[in-house]
Amino acid sequence: MSSIKKVVLAYSGGLDTSVIVKWLQENYDCEVVTFTADIGQGEEVEPARAKAQALGVKQIYIDDLREEFVRDFVFPMFRANTIYEGEYLLGTSIARPLIAKRLIEIANEVGADAISHGATGKGNDQVRFELGAYALKPGIKVIAPWREWDLTSRETLMTYCEKHNIPVDFNKKKKSPYSMDANLLHISYEGGVLENPWTEAEDDMWRWSVSPEAAPDVATYIDLTYEKGDAVAINGERLSPATILARLNELGGANGVGRLDIVENRYVGMKSRGCYETPGGTILLKAHRAIESITLDREVAHLKDSLMPRYAEMIYNGYWWSPERKMLQTAIDESQQFVNGEVRVKLYKGAVHVVGRRSADSLFDEKVATFEDDAGAYNQKDAEGFIKLNALRMRIAANKGRSLF
Amino acid sequence: MSSIKKVVLAYSGGLDTSVIVKWLQENYDCEVVTFTADIGQGEEVEPARAKAQALGVKQIYIDDLREEFVRDFVFPMFRANTIYEGEYLLGTSIARPLIAKRLIEIANEVGADAISHGATGKGNDQVRFELGAYALKPGIKVIAPWREWDLTSRETLMTYCEKHNIPVDFNKKKKSPYSMDANLLHISYEGGVLENPWTEAEDDMWRWSVSPEAAPDVATYIDLTYEKGDAVAINGERLSPATILARLNELGGANGVGRLDIVENRYVGMKSRGCYETPGGTILLKAHRAIESITLDREVAHLKDSLMPRYAEMIYNGYWWSPERKMLQTAIDESQQFVNGEVRVKLYKGAVHVVGRRSADSLFDEKVATFEDDAGAYNQKDAEGFIKLNALRMRIAANKGRSLF
Amino acid sequence: MSSIKKVVLAYSGGLDTSVIVKWLQENYDCEVVTFTADIGQGEEVEPARAKAQALGVKQIYIDDLREEFVRDFVFPMFRANTIYEGEYLLGTSIARPLIAKRLIEIANEVGADAISHGATGKGNDQVRFELGAYALKPGIKVIAPWREWDLTSRETLMTYCEKHNIPVDFNKKKKSPYSMDANLLHISYEGGVLENPWTEAEDDMWRWSVSPEAAPDVATYIDLTYEKGDAVAINGERLSPATILARLNELGGANGVGRLDIVENRYVGMKSRGCYETPGGTILLKAHRAIESITLDREVAHLKDSLMPRYAEMIYNGYWWSPERKMLQTAIDESQQFVNGEVRVKLYKGAVHVVGRRSADSLFDEKVATFEDDAGAYNQKDAEGFIKLNALRMRIAANKGRSLF
Amino acid sequence: MSSIKKVVLAYSGGLDTSVIVKWLQENYDCEVVTFTADIGQGEEVEPARAKAQALGVKQIYIDDLREEFVRDFVFPMFRANTIYEGEYLLGTSIARPLIAKRLIEIANEVGADAISHGATGKGNDQVRFELGAYALKPGIKVIAPWREWDLTSRETLMTYCEKHNIPVDFNKKKKSPYSMDANLLHISYEGGVLENPWTEAEDDMWRWSVSPEAAPDVATYIDLTYEKGDAVAINGERLSPATILARLNELGGANGVGRLDIVENRYVGMKSRGCYETPGGTILLKAHRAIESITLDREVAHLKDSLMPRYAEMIYNGYWWSPERKMLQTAIDESQQFVNGEVRVKLYKGAVHVVGRRSADSLFDEKVATFEDDAGAYNQKDAEGFIKLNALRMRIAANKGRSLF
Repeated sequence: MSSIKKVVLAYSGGLDTSVIVKWLQENYDCEVVTFTADIGQGEEVEPARAKAQALGVKQIYIDDLREEFVRDFVFPMFRANTIYEGEYLLGTSIARPLIAKRLIEIANEVGADAISHGATGKGNDQVRFELGAYALKPGIKVIAPWREWDLTSRETLMTYCEKHNIPVDFNKKKKSPYSMDANLLHISYEGGVLENPWTEAEDDMWRWSVSPEAAPDVATYIDLTYEKGDAVAINGERLSPATILARLNELGGANGVGRLDIVENRYVGMKSRGCYETPGGTILLKAHRAIESITLDREVAHLKDSLMPRYAEMIYNGYWWSPERKMLQTAIDESQQFVNGEVRVKLYKGAVHVVGRRSADSLFDEKVATFEDDAGAYNQKDAEGFIKLNALRMRIAANKGRSLF
Repeated sequence: MSSIKKVVLAYSGGLDTSVIVKWLQENYDCEVVTFTADIGQGEEVEPARAKAQALGVKQIYIDDLREEFVRDFVFPMFRANTIYEGEYLLGTSIARPLIAKRLIEIANEVGADAISHGATGKGNDQVRFELGAYALKPGIKVIAPWREWDLTSRETLMTYCEKHNIPVDFNKKKKSPYSMDANLLHISYEGGVLENPWTEAEDDMWRWSVSPEAAPDVATYIDLTYEKGDAVAINGERLSPATILARLNELGGANGVGRLDIVENRYVGMKSRGCYETPGGTILLKAHRAIESITLDREVAHLKDSLMPRYAEMIYNGYWWSPERKMLQTAIDESQQFVNGEVRVKLYKGAVHVVGRRSADSLFDEKVATFEDDAGAYNQKDAEGFIKLNALRMRIAANKGRSLF
Repeated sequence: MSSIKKVVLAYSGGLDTSVIVKWLQENYDCEVVTFTADIGQGEEVEPARAKAQALGVKQIYIDDLREEFVRDFVFPMFRANTIYEGEYLLGTSIARPLIAKRLIEIANEVGADAISHGATGKGNDQVRFELGAYALKPGIKVIAPWREWDLTSRETLMTYCEKHNIPVDFNKKKKSPYSMDANLLHISYEGGVLENPWTEAEDDMWRWSVSPEAAPDVATYIDLTYEKGDAVAINGERLSPATILARLNELGGANGVGRLDIVENRYVGMKSRGCYETPGGTILLKAHRAIESITLDREVAHLKDSLMPRYAEMIYNGYWWSPERKMLQTAIDESQQFVNGEVRVKLYKGAVHVVGRRSADSLFDEKVATFEDDAGAYNQKDAEGFIKLNALRMRIAANKGRSLF
Repeated sequence: MSSIKKVVLAYSGGLDTSVIVKWLQENYDCEVVTFTADIGQGEEVEPARAKAQALGVKQIYIDDLREEFVRDFVFPMFRANTIYEGEYLLGTSIARPLIAKRLIEIANEVGADAISHGATGKGNDQVRFELGAYALKPGIKVIAPWREWDLTSRETLMTYCEKHNIPVDFNKKKKSPYSMDANLLHISYEGGVLENPWTEAEDDMWRWSVSPEAAPDVATYIDLTYEKGDAVAINGERLSPATILARLNELGGANGVGRLDIVENRYVGMKSRGCYETPGGTILLKAHRAIESITLDREVAHLKDSLMPRYAEMIYNGYWWSPERKMLQTAIDESQQFVNGEVRVKLYKGAVHVVGRRSADSLFDEKVATFEDDAGAYNQKDAEGFIKLNALRMRIAANKGRSLF
């Protein structure tokens, strides 16, 4: 194989990436540097240190990236009301560019010439990791063991572990029949019975939220404060980005909010069925649209809506670190200047209901909108000319005999 | 005023349009033809006949348009997964072009030279009625009394009624503090306390749905069958378009589904707060996306998503009867050829959850998507070249020193 | 009429706007402040002073806005490669927001409560002036005499002049059978024989360019230098924005470059035939695309192309002073960071040919692009995976029996 | 290698594809079926028969596809006014899907399990061939020798020819220093000195057109007749699609029309410099826009313009045979229903000038558009309301203190 000297591996501490450590050492005869990040997946990251050490790793990076994740990735994305294919809040997609960035930063620090990850060759994550890495460090080598090795079944993997003395029981999560991914924004489930899209997800699969049926019989109301398009406070309490999202996850999860069951189109060309829990994100999307509804100009809002699907594609497909995403982000951020104010939402048994919104920057003009006497704020006669000129091209066409039936 | 001889009025049978009958007779010295349609608003239309007769109307049209409404307007719109400003299902907007069409058809039948309606000069409906009318009959005159007369307060209106012997109590609906509009797709509420967007809607405002809190403690499951993008059966029972929508309204309403509280941007330039109940439509939107998720090609789905906001604008702004809407509809309809199959949804206390979807035309390929051995259906090594070439432009840029940070 | 005290009039010094001065004084009994701008229309503006004085005007503004016009309006527009309806370079449209802005600035300075202009009620310019004015000063009154008065024929206008002692011969331009508009970017012609779109424009109509037939038999080569998307030098000589455009107008005009004859769609709903001479702009559009072709990322370029038609609409329709234009401009400007370098163009008998482009920020990578041995810069085998995965969704569909014929 | 039995090769009769015949026989031990098409490249195709026979080929397909090419590929594309990256008329791109389709048809007829082509691994054409092939016959194998073999230099290729008795001089075209491609729509040049984008193309490179300098001193006028968006007659003479394009190529070429020199972005990720001659296409693009300018509704035209860049990308990237292209084509074709009439163009020394257009389906309404008295066809007062309501949202924002400066 190629002459790689040092590789930085995105290391979860789980079985698969532990095998990868050994496999890299063995097959590439290179030093492995591990990088483990806390992005809010809800598992301790510190234990990864001992595990890596046991595998002979000398340079071990363990970072708490939760605030950076929410501040620089999740929040910018929510400014655009981003949804992929009408449903998916991009919980997995948005975490990958941060990991890619840190892998490259560490590669630069330790003088590594390659990075590696544990994503399979069928999924979107390999694309997201690698596009980010190449964009940030064009000469980097990427080793994707799942596309290379022959440990493709559970059995061969276990045999490999035995042979190399890798403890096989240290990752309890893997007892789940599902392939899962979690971070502060969401947890996802794929595989197992979900591979038949007609089969309903089993109730005990869900981990972050109670079922709507088990949620409280009394609704929870929340007031969310927004500044320049970002949530900054809950019920008046100012909180850091990661804290806000964590708090909303708790509140949403307790009310059965944020479960999603979809079939999505992967960038690599196949459809796949996934279940997601995004309690906080589900609230944020609704609330952000609500605060925009009174503070954003109509045409700006519509322009954003028309750009959103492409922006979502960029993130889903792994182009966070691209000039086109940066270009769109500039426009989106510019639009958020006046997106300030408060939104009141009601959480109840799996649903989020917006019930109120107010802002010092509101463009809602009660004097104009009222059904009561508006004291001349709006001249109804203007509407006639407005309609007549908007109709002109169609009247001319109809006069020329064109029919719309 | 102008020399109008005969005018067709969109007549609800309510107080306002009754006043308009009289006012048209008096001010335009013309014959008034009334047109009252059952589009599923949930009120008897037949009583409008006696009321119109009492006002001296000789030509009275009373039509049941429910099937046409759902088949030719609601369903084509739902094929596009249409939502205005991320939330609104366009319940009012989609009914107007049908009314406009019938007004013009009747005008042609009775030889009228004008049409008239009871929409105010501040709203979207005047635009929708009039753009449709002009597009379908370019020489038609439009009389919009609310933009002309001086009966702008409840008092002047009442005085007018007294003077002209118009019974003022025959419209019980108007006792509501809200301005309402209803058809088979939805009922809407504006005005009153809603004019403050921070004030939560009162619970007794809602008419079509129970509150989520009052909904059953046990979820309702529904199987919806789709053919070419349209729902054709519920739980295996084949039903007409209007019947399907009516049935879904019942099922949704009973489960607290479809309530919406938003601030929207009107075409005439102001923001307004509206509350909507769209029980069946809310189910249809989710279910249609779900059946598309397994039957639609990815790029077709994304193209549809990117066109949708503009399509929604066209309908909201009143351009149903326009060549651009027709052009988009052609593309949307073309895309629905294989959108066949079944979707299982769960209704529970205000939320709609998709739990399964299946189709003989499914593009979900279990053999390719599986986490298990795929027997060579997908070559993971292909992913490397895919990523490398997709990254090439960004690598070249990075090599030239461009930074994305 | 209303209680207007002081009005700022966009005053050309020509007959029509001179009549307007008098008409405003007479009909609104208000003070008229005139504003005349040099935006490169090619006529002296100073004579407007004496004419205004003769009409009793006391506050007279005469501004040279050429540099501001090109720097803040023309150049930002060209960064987007803006063309309306595939042909029109928006020469008239882009000057109006500047006039609107100065009208409002002057209104603020002199304490005027209204502005006025000489645009007709059929055209786009009224919209551009007034939308700008309302956006910048929402309480301003606008007086558009052509929509109000009865001086709608040449005869009534002449009678009015006679009656009010307005010298009728002081505007030689009006002897032309065409309605014309000029500024540093272009000169336009409408009306007269052009009202039949089948009739070829007469050769003596064109004023800024020689006919291609009369152009030199030897081509003219120009090197244009770009910085951040703006032209900054011609043949190595650094020049101000207005000077560059003026110079390019000369060079283009001398070579018959920039004539255009189109039928366009006005915002007010009708089609109109217009002829335009935009010599410098025609060169700038070609050259800007050429410098972008080597310095812009592919996806950024495509994103710009997809946004351009909407951006062009905004400018054409009069929404320069709008938040949505500002939002798009932010993105466009962001994209121009590396649009630096040189373009060589050849002007010859009516055509502009790009013949070379180079840049220190070029993304053209000869090593990768070459047909010769690329020394491993590009691995041709990557293409197989790239194609296979891009084809996957279509192969699955074909496998399921879907046909594309 | 794999067990391929029979392969259909896109065979030009030139050196490279002759080598491929031999190489396939040798390396895949399979039968080679050749397919040579006349798509207007301007070379005899019949000689390919003898060459193929000499190489031992038994099944030889030689087709005249010119009419199908123009009717079913070029014309549908021009209905959309398609241009890639603002300049390129997609001459190469649009021919590939036809070749792909015939390769697959022949593969079906002769029972071949693979196709092969002579496109390199760096270009777009491999993608276009293969995406088409996979979309039309998902199980087909594709052999792309340039991505596989080691004959990557002229020398190794020559040695191979000698060794296998392949006559090396039978393709005179290859004496050109450029890589060329030709069909009825265009001829292209890449490579050689063009690999430096600053170097002007040499004058003797161009083959289809005289230089503008050498073109006649007197302009050529042409009348083009359109039906449903397609050109059907020249100067009143009704001609077949291929004949029209051939005739326009002659007329354009004789007047120096249609030369283009650009740097474009390839789908595989690199920039490349190309020169193109598209004489007839250049005329068709201008003329089609002109006939649309009087027959197409404004919003339909704008919708088409906004979709065009994506449609162009689809064709450039090789997605002609895709459901998304088909979906867009449906909309485009629907829009062309009334695109009938005549356009008069003037060709002169490298430029195409539209000078007139007329149509029985014209939407140009002289009565409305006129600067003269319009006898009430348009009420100028309508413009006030039109502007006021369009300005409302911006006035409200300005009233709330938002500034656009």
